[in-house]
Amino acid sequence: MSARRERSHWGWGWADKWLDRDARAGMGAQVGAMLGFEGLSPEEPAPLDAIELAAPRVDAPEIDAPITAEPAARIRHTYGKSYRDLVRGFAGDYGAAPDLVALPESEEQVARILAWASEARVAVIPFGGGTSVVGGVEAALDRDHRAVLSLDLTRMDRVLEIEESSMSARIQAGARGPRLEEQLAERGLTLRFFPQSFEHSTLGGWIATRAGGHFATVYTHIDDLTLATRTLTPRGPMETRRLPGSGAGPSPDRMVLGSEGTLGVITEGWMQIRPRPTFRATASVRFDDYDKAVHAVRALSQSGLHPSNCRLLDSREAALSFVANDGSSVLVLGFESADHPLEPWMERALELAEDHGGECPDGATYGTAGEKASGGAAGTWKQAFIEAPYLQNTMVSLGVIADTFETAIPWDRFEALHTAVIRNVRDAMKRACGRGSISCRFTHVYPSGPAPYYTFLAPARRGAELEQWAEIKKAASDTLIAHGATITHHHAVGRTHKPWYEAQRPALFGDALAAAKRTLDPKGVMNPGCLI
Amino acid sequence: MSARRERSHWGWGWADKWLDRDARAGMGAQVGAMLGFEGLSPEEPAPLDAIELAAPRVDAPEIDAPITAEPAARIRHTYGKSYRDLVRGFAGDYGAAPDLVALPESEEQVARILAWASEARVAVIPFGGGTSVVGGVEAALDRDHRAVLSLDLTRMDRVLEIEESSMSARIQAGARGPRLEEQLAERGLTLRFFPQSFEHSTLGGWIATRAGGHFATVYTHIDDLTLATRTLTPRGPMETRRLPGSGAGPSPDRMVLGSEGTLGVITEGWMQIRPRPTFRATASVRFDDYDKAVHAVRALSQSGLHPSNCRLLDSREAALSFVANDGSSVLVLGFESADHPLEPWMERALELAEDHGGECPDGATYGTAGEKASGGAAGTWKQAFIEAPYLQNTMVSLGVIADTFETAIPWDRFEALHTAVIRNVRDAMKRACGRGSISCRFTHVYPSGPAPYYTFLAPARRGAELEQWAEIKKAASDTLIAHGATITHHHAVGRTHKPWYEAQRPALFGDALAAAKRTLDPKGVMNPGCLI
Repeated sequence: MSARRERSHWGWGWADKWLDRDARAGMGAQVGAMLGFEGLSPEEPAPLDAIELAAPRVDAPEIDAPITAEPAARIRHTYGKSYRDLVRGFAGDYGAAPDLVALPESEEQVARILAWASEARVAVIPFGGGTSVVGGVEAALDRDHRAVLSLDLTRMDRVLEIEESSMSARIQAGARGPRLEEQLAERGLTLRFFPQSFEHSTLGGWIATRAGGHFATVYTHIDDLTLATRTLTPRGPMETRRLPGSGAGPSPDRMVLGSEGTLGVITEGWMQIRPRPTFRATASVRFDDYDKAVHAVRALSQSGLHPSNCRLLDSREAALSFVANDGSSVLVLGFESADHPLEPWMERALELAEDHGGECPDGATYGTAGEKASGGAAGTWKQAFIEAPYLQNTMVSLGVIADTFETAIPWDRFEALHTAVIRNVRDAMKRACGRGSISCRFTHVYPSGPAPYYTFLAPARRGAELEQWAEIKKAASDTLIAHGATITHHHAVGRTHKPWYEAQRPALFGDALAAAKRTLDPKGVMNPGCLI
Repeated sequence: MSARRERSHWGWGWADKWLDRDARAGMGAQVGAMLGFEGLSPEEPAPLDAIELAAPRVDAPEIDAPITAEPAARIRHTYGKSYRDLVRGFAGDYGAAPDLVALPESEEQVARILAWASEARVAVIPFGGGTSVVGGVEAALDRDHRAVLSLDLTRMDRVLEIEESSMSARIQAGARGPRLEEQLAERGLTLRFFPQSFEHSTLGGWIATRAGGHFATVYTHIDDLTLATRTLTPRGPMETRRLPGSGAGPSPDRMVLGSEGTLGVITEGWMQIRPRPTFRATASVRFDDYDKAVHAVRALSQSGLHPSNCRLLDSREAALSFVANDGSSVLVLGFESADHPLEPWMERALELAEDHGGECPDGATYGTAGEKASGGAAGTWKQAFIEAPYLQNTMVSLGVIADTFETAIPWDRFEALHTAVIRNVRDAMKRACGRGSISCRFTHVYPSGPAPYYTFLAPARRGAELEQWAEIKKAASDTLIAHGATITHHHAVGRTHKPWYEAQRPALFGDALAAAKRTLDPKGVMNPGCLI
């Protein structure tokens, strides 16, 4: 492990990535010029040591498990990383801080904590890496509980077993992306699951939220890489068999996947790993016409070519990512393999894209192990992808509302949805903020439809950001549900999306899930208020 | 629809496929010679009109729905098509006949039937196409109910909607394979889901049992082609959104998939369809050494080539299917596409197979639309696959125990499992029957392991078949569970597999599922005794 590097207590990611005042002012000028926002000037976040917390509502229990009421730990476990969380953290508003933070090092300690919490009526919030953007880790106290404990599993971060012939690894749920990849890399293996939060989120969090990863097709969600799970419920452990494709009854893993900490604490997963790819192919395809680009991606999604990357950036997204600035939409296309050269795959994919009006004058770039086949726009875009969430820190400091939302929708409904989203979110930004900008990319695609990902930016009125944001968020979410889309493809439900999730899911399924929860968590201590 | 063709009342499939006495005697001689079974001579099944049934325990209700107590209908809805079912049907033992059979033509009628049954304490058994081989449709009366109604949905067999841009179709659950394919074919489309029971089983049955279909990789189970479901529970309809890849909470569809009629009646599904393939490639690869063949298939499963067919027949299976008779194992390999020629895919696959000791002297056969690329052994094997279940009818008549069981297992555990299965099943056949034969093929393969499918044949003692069979089945099932395999990859749990399923699934998941059932089916009328 590298020398201790601090994470920001209020914002996204590493503290050392926080820009100085001048750099932020420069960003403000740039964004202002691009989007016509006026008077953007950077402010400073409330420093950690100036934040005042209420006294904990409960004392740390005398059980054999590391539990602290130390203020810095409570502050760092108050929020996730949504825009709303950043604004409150920036302002030093930590009224929602948990009373206690536990940092267990073993499943036995987790079991003790759950037993105590069930007895003491203390809500338990599995924190994962704390990168939820939907209020999934926010510890709101309700009437049934007398205090809140945030459960941080990041000390349980080991790869426990690697089984190479079946390309499977048993991994503790608290392992963050780099930590699990470094252990797999010792054997030349990889999970290759790269959500944008990769550096900061954990395997358990990915499973709990059905996170979306590296692959744009086939293996899109962590669901598709999960072979078995071990979950510690308040009633005890629930462990599934490591099996390639059991058809015995409804899948127990599929009840855990997406359960968002409401049924128990995921402590381990058996995951599908793979050798590191030795062949890579990338290309960027430009389209003058967005509709044609959408049709090209649809054809690719139904071609059986299974590209690993198939991300369509609309013209505004392409401009904001510095990939194209001439009004074109850009399709970033990639294939990878540890088995075979990829020319036939990529050539057919480019042929399809060109049949739909795409242009790829530079052709594809092919690479082998070690090299980076980062063909122009593909490389630029990838860097922007990893760095993007840091922009949100700067935007909060500049007084710009900056957020994303994502969905999935059948192809036949995409155009109507997209038109309505752009119109309704623009109208809401106009009402709430006077103006604003919205862009779209596809993060994942399926034969039956795309997963569009929207980014919006609007100038905030200092102090009124959260009301302004809520109006825009409501317009976006109402539009998704009205047009038959899902409230989330991979960001999860948490607390923020709950009203729309309840409109989307079958009511009887909600009842069945609640009944399952009561069975596994009879005292209702697991992440109350989230999802169910 | 073709002219009325009758299904056998006791055996597999079409009545007109029943062989005359001489043909069966010939088969007996052939099987006897191959396997060393002596004195096989054909007997005749109890004729339909000689079967005596007890009077129904309840009268058909006066509700607007077609419900009958007619003996032939009751007989035809008594059993599935397991070996055990065939033996009892052959003997004319229909003591387990349901009291009533309903043949609803609309969801409204289904709703009326469920409402009446909940009130009248009558168990409801969704019958699907009645091809269960695990006792999933067998109507055993328990203390909580006063009668049993078998619910046949095959009159609800229409493709209701086709949405071409997202390659999706909304199909009524009672549609059997040929019926739904003929409606899709009018638009040049296909579901391409071909379980062995294709001609006789229904979409709803496939979803309820997580059936395994055409594709050996990626889209192996019906799960992977299911975009949304509509289920009528005793508390009302539960309909999910048609979505390409929602990550909102645990998937409601994944609770319905595998529910085996215990939560409600699946009435419709939105399914992923596709254009009919225009390119095909097939090849047969021979291996002297079974272990090397297994390694070749493992390499293929992890290659990312995604063959549509990747079925490994061990030497005995190859001989019984008339594919090879020289002690080789045979890998039947296929690719198909509606988008691109398949040479690069097949060439790389054959290279991999040859790297592991495979031989393919004739090379691959390529075909385009209309043609049949049925390359030798591949074609022979496919025909045998469809016809195989009819053999079971003949075997029952000859007094041969003939059955199959299937599983899935990680690659690292396959060899130990396989060795133990062969040994333990042979031992059990020896104890129960004096001798017997067992063979294996892989039906589906995953990066993490294969789905082996075993066939066993042993000479029965007339009248003691079911005790002999039970001893063999127990040996097989105990071995699967002891070696970390699943009790079923795609045959489902039903009543037959329940003891082993209960050992396999996490106990707490069993509790959660039972709680979900109580919520959706408060009177417990849905398929009691099955699965839960």
